[in-house]
Amino acid sequence: MSKLVKAFAPASVAILGASDNPHKAGGRPIAFLKRYGFAGRIYPVNPARAQVQGLRAYAALAALPEVPELVIVAVGGAAGLAMVEACAAAGVPVVVVVASGFAESGSEGRILQQRMVAACRAAGTRLVGPNCQGLANFANGTIANFATIFHEQPGRDGPLAIVGQSGAATQSVYTLAHSRGIFSRYVHATGNEADVTAVELLREIVEDEDIRAAILYLESIADPELLAEAAARASERGVPVIAIKGGRSASGQRAASSHTGAMATEDRIVDAFFAKHDIIRAVDPYEAVSVAALCVGAHMPRGRNLVAMSSSGASCVMAADTADELDLPLLTLDGEAARSLEEVLPGFSSAANPVDLTGAMLTDRNLFPGALDALARANSLHLLMFSLPVAGAGYDVDGYAKALAAFAAGNDVTVAVAAHQASVRESFDGHGLVTYEREREALQALNVVANYALRRQRNRRAPQAGGPRATPPAPAAPPESTGPAMLDEARSLGLLGSAGLQTVRFALCRTPDEAVAAWRNIGASVVLKGCSPDILHKSEHDLVALDLSEESQVREQAERLEAGVRRLGARYSGVLVASMLRGGHELALGARVDPVFGPVVLVGDGGVYLEALQDFRLLVPPFGEWEVADALARLRIAPILAGLRGEPPADTEAFCRMAVNLGNAILEWRERVASIDINPVKVFAEGQGAVAVDAVVELARP
Amino acid sequence: MSKLVKAFAPASVAILGASDNPHKAGGRPIAFLKRYGFAGRIYPVNPARAQVQGLRAYAALAALPEVPELVIVAVGGAAGLAMVEACAAAGVPVVVVVASGFAESGSEGRILQQRMVAACRAAGTRLVGPNCQGLANFANGTIANFATIFHEQPGRDGPLAIVGQSGAATQSVYTLAHSRGIFSRYVHATGNEADVTAVELLREIVEDEDIRAAILYLESIADPELLAEAAARASERGVPVIAIKGGRSASGQRAASSHTGAMATEDRIVDAFFAKHDIIRAVDPYEAVSVAALCVGAHMPRGRNLVAMSSSGASCVMAADTADELDLPLLTLDGEAARSLEEVLPGFSSAANPVDLTGAMLTDRNLFPGALDALARANSLHLLMFSLPVAGAGYDVDGYAKALAAFAAGNDVTVAVAAHQASVRESFDGHGLVTYEREREALQALNVVANYALRRQRNRRAPQAGGPRATPPAPAAPPESTGPAMLDEARSLGLLGSAGLQTVRFALCRTPDEAVAAWRNIGASVVLKGCSPDILHKSEHDLVALDLSEESQVREQAERLEAGVRRLGARYSGVLVASMLRGGHELALGARVDPVFGPVVLVGDGGVYLEALQDFRLLVPPFGEWEVADALARLRIAPILAGLRGEPPADTEAFCRMAVNLGNAILEWRERVASIDINPVKVFAEGQGAVAVDAVVELARP
Repeated sequence: MSKLVKAFAPASVAILGASDNPHKAGGRPIAFLKRYGFAGRIYPVNPARAQVQGLRAYAALAALPEVPELVIVAVGGAAGLAMVEACAAAGVPVVVVVASGFAESGSEGRILQQRMVAACRAAGTRLVGPNCQGLANFANGTIANFATIFHEQPGRDGPLAIVGQSGAATQSVYTLAHSRGIFSRYVHATGNEADVTAVELLREIVEDEDIRAAILYLESIADPELLAEAAARASERGVPVIAIKGGRSASGQRAASSHTGAMATEDRIVDAFFAKHDIIRAVDPYEAVSVAALCVGAHMPRGRNLVAMSSSGASCVMAADTADELDLPLLTLDGEAARSLEEVLPGFSSAANPVDLTGAMLTDRNLFPGALDALARANSLHLLMFSLPVAGAGYDVDGYAKALAAFAAGNDVTVAVAAHQASVRESFDGHGLVTYEREREALQALNVVANYALRRQRNRRAPQAGGPRATPPAPAAPPESTGPAMLDEARSLGLLGSAGLQTVRFALCRTPDEAVAAWRNIGASVVLKGCSPDILHKSEHDLVALDLSEESQVREQAERLEAGVRRLGARYSGVLVASMLRGGHELALGARVDPVFGPVVLVGDGGVYLEALQDFRLLVPPFGEWEVADALARLRIAPILAGLRGEPPADTEAFCRMAVNLGNAILEWRERVASIDINPVKVFAEGQGAVAVDAVVELARP
Repeated sequence: MSKLVKAFAPASVAILGASDNPHKAGGRPIAFLKRYGFAGRIYPVNPARAQVQGLRAYAALAALPEVPELVIVAVGGAAGLAMVEACAAAGVPVVVVVASGFAESGSEGRILQQRMVAACRAAGTRLVGPNCQGLANFANGTIANFATIFHEQPGRDGPLAIVGQSGAATQSVYTLAHSRGIFSRYVHATGNEADVTAVELLREIVEDEDIRAAILYLESIADPELLAEAAARASERGVPVIAIKGGRSASGQRAASSHTGAMATEDRIVDAFFAKHDIIRAVDPYEAVSVAALCVGAHMPRGRNLVAMSSSGASCVMAADTADELDLPLLTLDGEAARSLEEVLPGFSSAANPVDLTGAMLTDRNLFPGALDALARANSLHLLMFSLPVAGAGYDVDGYAKALAAFAAGNDVTVAVAAHQASVRESFDGHGLVTYEREREALQALNVVANYALRRQRNRRAPQAGGPRATPPAPAAPPESTGPAMLDEARSLGLLGSAGLQTVRFALCRTPDEAVAAWRNIGASVVLKGCSPDILHKSEHDLVALDLSEESQVREQAERLEAGVRRLGARYSGVLVASMLRGGHELALGARVDPVFGPVVLVGDGGVYLEALQDFRLLVPPFGEWEVADALARLRIAPILAGLRGEPPADTEAFCRMAVNLGNAILEWRERVASIDINPVKVFAEGQGAVAVDAVVELARP
């Protein structure tokens, strides 16, 4: 058992800087430990008092009858540092420093914090904080946390875990969840994270068998490997991790860096990383709780087929709009389900989906249970959103709730309820159903958990899916860089070819004679390019000659291009002679090694406007072909690749294989290669392959 | 005063089919009229009873002591029709038929409804419904409406008006608004709209000086002109109209057509129409109410500059993310505002925006008022979102609320508050501030009202803005069509030229000699196209020859193209000889006459993938250049048009002039032209103009 786990269930807790006032940082944890039934020993330490909040107080750590298993330090500055040093010297396993005035307050504080960490590291003491709200475990009342909200909205053990750097963010999540009747076992806020991180706590928490969902608030991801490990364990156990990653935008990153010194990362890498590791991303605490409600209160979906059902035709219309917007398929009801539904619906209704129960719900008591019976006969129904926007006298709300709860219990369908009135929601809540005030929110949450569940299934069976992965050849080692350096196009293409990527047929020629020989050898129209590791944008320097099909043209252009390169004072690698390829869709494929996340692969719409149009997706290697196909399907150009106006679909399979190989290659090359840009990759009609036409490899700084 | 207005404040109301049971459709209005203090005379009509709900009952309409000013009919089918006929015969000004069993129930009901309408029309009686929830006016207790929710959440006069076809949708809006403490004067649901429409009621309501916002639920827009008129009057009076238009998507339109028989319309036209007429679009009742809260409770913004301020650093980070996502500028605080703010903020904070007040709010009572004082000195601050995600003992919530209310009263700043705890929101509500549970929702609402206010300003001053509008020449009249017919390219370009659109220099030539003469006349490289009104896609039939610069080429190609057209059995108009234009961005410009909304203009990314990539916007003519510029700025290709990598920006001004002229032309031609496609328009570098290169005009069916 790790020391950190001990902090969740210590036999004894000491509070240094203990206060008699239960509303001060040094007083609140004592009040909470007592209130929430902590069964271990509590040692207030305050040299000025004999008693604190009715407990015997001690003058110093050294005066305690034992070395406590957990110490809360509520004293800042140099005095706080001295206390932490004393804890470390005494062999306290975990210290939670709730006091502030450390790295967050400037250079003096930063030095105090560094000394604090040094003392703890040397002694093997784990340090939570400083400047943190602390740890809370409502399973056993270990509340080493001074969150005011535990006074206002009393904690109660539940299936949710909340972890983050920010005390305010974890309190936000706690409050929103609590007001929906979702209770949290763990509420941990790690503040400055001088030692223990939120992710490390998450890693421990996902082992707790009673936890059904974890919400994580992050402003930076310092240790993606640990997060991946925690997420893998969570996924294995079927515990959704819902992460709110603040700092998505430029302004958000500026705000985050002034808040917790978070480092800027391209936000799409975060998306790619989360997708890879079965982490659900939420935009804010509200959305996180909205999704968690389904995670803790309903079956995990087995698919995305939706039925929306409502007493209101208008709700049906808006639900259909939202389903389309989210690309959630509205299940076509047919066969027995449709027949049964038509039997119970009023004469003028049809078994369309969304199912409009109409105001007849009010007068026909058999309508709602009958409709549920009909839905129980539907094939491949995965998601049900039932909306009762308004109800009143005459509506048997409790009867509906009971019937729906029985349906949810007896069918493998994820059910969400929407109702505008709090009293109506309470009836459904009372029968264990998950409720929302807004239909749109219910549908969004269903969509998120369905996507999570499907992604998790695919991620978990990925190695088997779609046959064995393309086995890349052992790629050639890139040369070592003696400084930041580009490989010229010929060497770049050569290197990619060695990794199993199909490249255009080419030859690097030093002389016009060699160029002519290469042209003859290719036996068709060719492109010539002046090749130099110093020149990135050849077209801008007029170093490209297209569509040459006569010897004299080839010779003349080879001479012109060599002269052009030399005129620019650039190193001359030669003239690249390549097949002139016509047609095909131009995609972009790239890779780079992110300083935080490591290798990342880009797939997107090609051409010169890649950056401006931003029609690309990122993937974290290694990945399978289905992941590339999924990314391509989400591009705006997806309908074009699928084939428009009778055009054949593009050979995206060939592109997917190429991307998988590039992913494997960049993993292999991560020490030596900084980035790879292949733009365009020409993707031809189905069955006719994909070819890297132009490429630049940038070597890593040594 | 129109008859309809009388229905809002009648001197007498009769209920045909009156019920003693206050929970039945024929009983509820009576209960409501009594409960909500209707001061006029109430006449229950029920031949079987002497009294109904304590009031004297009458046997029939004819037995009443007077002709009532408003009659509610709660009896369906043929009996209901007979009652409506009796009302019409007696000269009742307005009848509200709440009973169902008419057009919504099938062909028999449809016939009954038609007869009902005929009787009313003949007598000059206005008919609301049938199958409607009816009319409610809480200013004077005229509740001719059987909504159950008026039992559950008692009505109270307020600044909001709610109108729609759907009773459930209007009740949804009412319920959500009510639970936020926003009260509604009018709640009108028109059901089948056999005569009176929701839009017609809106037209009356916007004249009420106490109404500060109107929410409209629609599934179709049958009479855009009336809606435009109502919206114009609302805009003039400064009353925001917030419309929820169900049926945005294909599935939603299917659901809407089965619900109210709504007609499918391309949803982007609705957007364009709403933008033109200062109508705010909301996605559902929840969003409508969220926006209405600011409309009724805060100043209308004068701009979009935002300050976000919070006790939580995490909230600041997320608010910055949301602001970036919404493209809301975070105001840079400088000068006196920044100095004042730095004075009050704790040592380690800076005057960045979002403003992080930190937990120091709890201990420093001067911090919050001091920060507000500093913000009062900021120049061009328009929007303030203050977030207090969690609070508890020690937080002077009421003091904050009072200070913020004073700030809102004393400054021309639109203020929204976000707090997760209901108790905290209540404090701010109590001081007249607008509150949200979620920061993101507060920011979204601020963004919507700021956009509305700016758009309204621009729409209202549009005729003066940016100098006089381009005066188009009187365009040539398009020929009359003797059937659906395309004009060939030459005639299409000619017609557009007559409307002041810059077209490529071209000549239509019947013979190779004429083609050669035209080429000489143009004096540069040319394009030749085989021209026929029967051939839309010339490239697909190999009827285009590019970049010809020699006489022999021109002659040879002119012969080949004529033969090509004739081989297809198409009418041969001639060979079009046009300047070969190089470079420039390819945009699309189009127009068509929508059967509901009339003329609509499209501006977008050009090329063959217009449909697939959907990178376009629609505009309703007449419009000014700024509206086109605004539409272009929202395209995904906007950064490309602005000039990338040192490229000069595109001459979007020339394109805007062209679009304005096209808008004016399609208004003029609306009877004769069905659609116009100009793709591409080549837009050259700034100052170098824009030119229509290819065009097809489709004539209207006669």
